[in-house]
Amino acid sequence: MSIIKDLVTANRILHNESVLFEAFGHVSVRNPENPNQFFLSRSLAPAQVKDEDIYVFDLEGKCLTPNHKKTFAEVVIHSEIYKHYPEVNSVCHNHAQQLIPFTVLDIPYKPLSHYGAMFYEGVPVYDSYDVSDGMIVRNQDEGERIASTLKNHKAVFLRGHGVVVVGENLKRCVLNSVFMVIDAENQYKCLQLGEPKYLSYFEGKTCDEKTWSMEMAQERAWNYWVSRVEEKVLTNY
Amino acid sequence: MSIIKDLVTANRILHNESVLFEAFGHVSVRNPENPNQFFLSRSLAPAQVKDEDIYVFDLEGKCLTPNHKKTFAEVVIHSEIYKHYPEVNSVCHNHAQQLIPFTVLDIPYKPLSHYGAMFYEGVPVYDSYDVSDGMIVRNQDEGERIASTLKNHKAVFLRGHGVVVVGENLKRCVLNSVFMVIDAENQYKCLQLGEPKYLSYFEGKTCDEKTWSMEMAQERAWNYWVSRVEEKVLTNY
Amino acid sequence: MSIIKDLVTANRILHNESVLFEAFGHVSVRNPENPNQFFLSRSLAPAQVKDEDIYVFDLEGKCLTPNHKKTFAEVVIHSEIYKHYPEVNSVCHNHAQQLIPFTVLDIPYKPLSHYGAMFYEGVPVYDSYDVSDGMIVRNQDEGERIASTLKNHKAVFLRGHGVVVVGENLKRCVLNSVFMVIDAENQYKCLQLGEPKYLSYFEGKTCDEKTWSMEMAQERAWNYWVSRVEEKVLTNY
Amino acid sequence: MSIIKDLVTANRILHNESVLFEAFGHVSVRNPENPNQFFLSRSLAPAQVKDEDIYVFDLEGKCLTPNHKKTFAEVVIHSEIYKHYPEVNSVCHNHAQQLIPFTVLDIPYKPLSHYGAMFYEGVPVYDSYDVSDGMIVRNQDEGERIASTLKNHKAVFLRGHGVVVVGENLKRCVLNSVFMVIDAENQYKCLQLGEPKYLSYFEGKTCDEKTWSMEMAQERAWNYWVSRVEEKVLTNY
Repeated sequence: MSIIKDLVTANRILHNESVLFEAFGHVSVRNPENPNQFFLSRSLAPAQVKDEDIYVFDLEGKCLTPNHKKTFAEVVIHSEIYKHYPEVNSVCHNHAQQLIPFTVLDIPYKPLSHYGAMFYEGVPVYDSYDVSDGMIVRNQDEGERIASTLKNHKAVFLRGHGVVVVGENLKRCVLNSVFMVIDAENQYKCLQLGEPKYLSYFEGKTCDEKTWSMEMAQERAWNYWVSRVEEKVLTNY
Repeated sequence: MSIIKDLVTANRILHNESVLFEAFGHVSVRNPENPNQFFLSRSLAPAQVKDEDIYVFDLEGKCLTPNHKKTFAEVVIHSEIYKHYPEVNSVCHNHAQQLIPFTVLDIPYKPLSHYGAMFYEGVPVYDSYDVSDGMIVRNQDEGERIASTLKNHKAVFLRGHGVVVVGENLKRCVLNSVFMVIDAENQYKCLQLGEPKYLSYFEGKTCDEKTWSMEMAQERAWNYWVSRVEEKVLTNY
Repeated sequence: MSIIKDLVTANRILHNESVLFEAFGHVSVRNPENPNQFFLSRSLAPAQVKDEDIYVFDLEGKCLTPNHKKTFAEVVIHSEIYKHYPEVNSVCHNHAQQLIPFTVLDIPYKPLSHYGAMFYEGVPVYDSYDVSDGMIVRNQDEGERIASTLKNHKAVFLRGHGVVVVGENLKRCVLNSVFMVIDAENQYKCLQLGEPKYLSYFEGKTCDEKTWSMEMAQERAWNYWVSRVEEKVLTNY
Repeated sequence: MSIIKDLVTANRILHNESVLFEAFGHVSVRNPENPNQFFLSRSLAPAQVKDEDIYVFDLEGKCLTPNHKKTFAEVVIHSEIYKHYPEVNSVCHNHAQQLIPFTVLDIPYKPLSHYGAMFYEGVPVYDSYDVSDGMIVRNQDEGERIASTLKNHKAVFLRGHGVVVVGENLKRCVLNSVFMVIDAENQYKCLQLGEPKYLSYFEGKTCDEKTWSMEMAQERAWNYWVSRVEEKVLTNY
């Protein structure tokens, strides 16, 4: 199925662009043929995911793939968001290091360049961990609490841990995830010298609708990222 | 035509040096055989531009290449500058991330090392967007407003977006674009510890005239950047 | 012996991940068949270590490998720690540059993300050099002073020099070493904008026990790092 | 001659380690067979220097190589230092970007880690340019002024431009140049959070004499840097 191939590519892209940082984090996509299912890799470094590592899950986070290997404890982040938000068709949980300051400091991330325009509604910070789980999201209740924090935003930060980014399709979720890192890095750098002029709500919304929501922009970015992954594959293997 | 080949190389160089950052931004050159025309790629990531992707445009931003594919909405930045500044023969619009702080903070970029000498007249910030266009430059009026901000400067910052850099020829425009990023990064870093000693107006002007305006310096830099692009091509393809 | 092969791989990983920075630093492992011995490379850049460069040492730091070449003066760091801490089975001394601020500033490193959870007991700073040895650890007394600073911690910083990290096995020591760098970099970056919310003692301890102590997490990370080393080898040789 | 080969290698190393940054900067070595001569490449990006590009110069900066191509205007930096300091046998002029803050801010560079120990006497800043030469050193008088600033130091910063580093032999000059960048970057980073504890004069001097002055340390570093250059060559050509 082409969606499986695209999800493998998304894993490679998001790792290659330092969003799925190191050996951890994961990206999923809703099954286009059955909205009550979604695809996600087994427990594996994103850089190493291949077609056969993509499993299918239901909205309770149960793995439906027969004879499957170990899966992610954090699958509940994905299942709960798909359950509560029918318009979301792709979810990425990552630990991009440029985002960490905005999860542990009392400074809200706000877009200041067109790269971050889609986050014009802001990004809330989740900090209601089950402390007995040690900063990792392991149970359905916690997945639901994260989902209920998302609301009309396109992402939720997890304190001292990372972020959950969503999109109406896989390529949009990848674009949102990469561009958040770019723009957050800019805000971090600007704040060291002073208070920057942020995008207005209207500027962000208009830019999101007129540019990043367009298939052409998504395709240009996706094709570029694919070419980088392919370069690497050709060089290294 | 050799100018087409050089423009493709300029795209590769500017991407390779992180000036044409990610999948966006563009560089153009005036047609040496017809000053009322200029060359610019179609809508494509700069890293992927090939000879057949270079189109010819008139000074109203109209694409004259027959059967052409989708072009950049922002072509008006180029056409309006060529129309108003006959001495400008190359234009680069980029989103180099090192420049963003100087577009959204109330801190003017000023050269402090010989790398930035050519910007001794300073760099104005454009902030008169058509808000209904969402931070992207899409119409001729806005292109003209940017052109009228340029005046005797060698670049104009676009708030929360990027920069437009010009040059009297293609290699000079590439050199100006790369070196601005190097010097702006230095200013950014110095300002975190204190107020640096900047180049005097006279130091900048003299360095620009005696060093960066010399074909020898431009060629040494260009040849070096070409060798880096070629290394990459040999490695990756 | 497979432990030799793993130690060579650990050298490559730690260099590849910029922990064994440049041509200096070293990692060792206790002999699983004889707790009074440990393995460590001869005096060589970690990136260049091969099987035949791994020597065996006793707990006085004496090299037992016949006809050996020049060894590290700093072997005493390893021997003294193995002598005093039977539960420690691997030691890494590195100069990762991200750690230096915490060795020379009056700011204690404290974990703020799950990456640094294992350091929930904090990391003491050693600053009792034999000044006549010029910042390098060259004698057994100094090795013992460093060992006695370690206590129940998982690492000791060396002022203006680097760090010593330990683990209950080789893969754990590698993981601790890499993740300390990631988390310390985060703390450094956050402190530029304000005081971050750190992990509580309990959060760190739980995360360490429930996640990083698990063989599955250690293996996932190790396999990922190995794949990066192999890519490089395939590309470069 | 083996010194020519080593000088080519030094060019590659210093570029590969981002010391001979971009297409500019140069490194020279005194002729071991004639102290009144030294070797230096023609005007070329250091990354591109080959055996045939190495020319011989006298202590007035005159090129003695017959039928030579264009040479560096800044040759006078080298010739004047060799003339005034018989114990100096290698000179590197570079624009490593990590050093620029210490050339334009009122903050002296001081070693804080063992990497920078050899600079325990401090590094003066030269700021007596012939303004009509635009930040570039073009005449013998200015070369002499720089030489007279050096005194007992191992380097001189050039305001808004770069540095001149010397060594008693080529490998030492390379090591001094690379390690200055590492240590200056550390000082820069520390100063953003507070005042670090620097090496004492005695610590620096002892470390320099007992470690970096030893042929073994110089060889270990040199061999490591050579291996990195060779990897690149094998990959890219």
